[in-house]
Amino acid sequence: MKPFATLALCAAAFAALPAAAQFARPEDAVKYRQSALTVMGTHFFRIGAMASGRAPYDAKAALENAQVVADMARLPWAGFGPGTDKISPKAKPEIWTEQAKFRDHADKMIAESANLLAAAKTNNLDNLKKVFATTNASCKACHDNYRGN
Amino acid sequence: MKPFATLALCAAAFAALPAAAQFARPEDAVKYRQSALTVMGTHFFRIGAMASGRAPYDAKAALENAQVVADMARLPWAGFGPGTDKISPKAKPEIWTEQAKFRDHADKMIAESANLLAAAKTNNLDNLKKVFATTNASCKACHDNYRGN
Repeated sequence: MKPFATLALCAAAFAALPAAAQFARPEDAVKYRQSALTVMGTHFFRIGAMASGRAPYDAKAALENAQVVADMARLPWAGFGPGTDKISPKAKPEIWTEQAKFRDHADKMIAESANLLAAAKTNNLDNLKKVFATTNASCKACHDNYRGN
Repeated sequence: MKPFATLALCAAAFAALPAAAQFARPEDAVKYRQSALTVMGTHFFRIGAMASGRAPYDAKAALENAQVVADMARLPWAGFGPGTDKISPKAKPEIWTEQAKFRDHADKMIAESANLLAAAKTNNLDNLKKVFATTNASCKACHDNYRGN
């Protein structure tokens, strides 16, 4: 790789992940991002249970869960910093070679989680179902591209 | 234990931890609470670094971190449900025999995290230091009583 390209890539990585430097060790970053995704996923799946009819619709619970999803959606990305690909094989190395694309996925998830919260506030199950599906698609798109086994 | 006392204890446990039943397996509850505490701790320690002078004071970062701490403070407790003491030795069995006292600790942490957020909003390092210390004391009090090694 040419020096300028390397520099540009580093600059992009810093712009995309300003908080990465806040982790003392790559292990801490991995634990943090996995934790944030676990909390987000737990509450997201509870909305999914309502959306699919596996659990009864409870507007208050849906709103509480959507609030946590929206709060959490901003967090995990800071943990995808340089060096962390050596620790967790579930993160594909393309995350670091396709920073802008990865960031686009993260931004889409953040936007979708705000839409999900707005839908939960309408107190209408059909709205919730619709936005749950698009939010879930944004999770899946990123997993398909960047999550290994 | 007398039957009535057992019943009262069970009722208190349900009132204190309404979301425990939302976890399919005790393992999920343990992973969830550990994840929530990891995220909360990460952001809390960043405020601690500013409060202790190990990191420069950054009012915007302090506020962002305090917001995450306040958001997270409500979450871990639902994961301390019946049966989870068999999985994580870090949770002492007294959590389940002293539910009301454990819940008091949780409520104190939630209240302190709101105070911490309010202090961060004042944009004054001395305020932040003061409330960080009392919030940290509320973490420690619960750990001293209920966290094993």
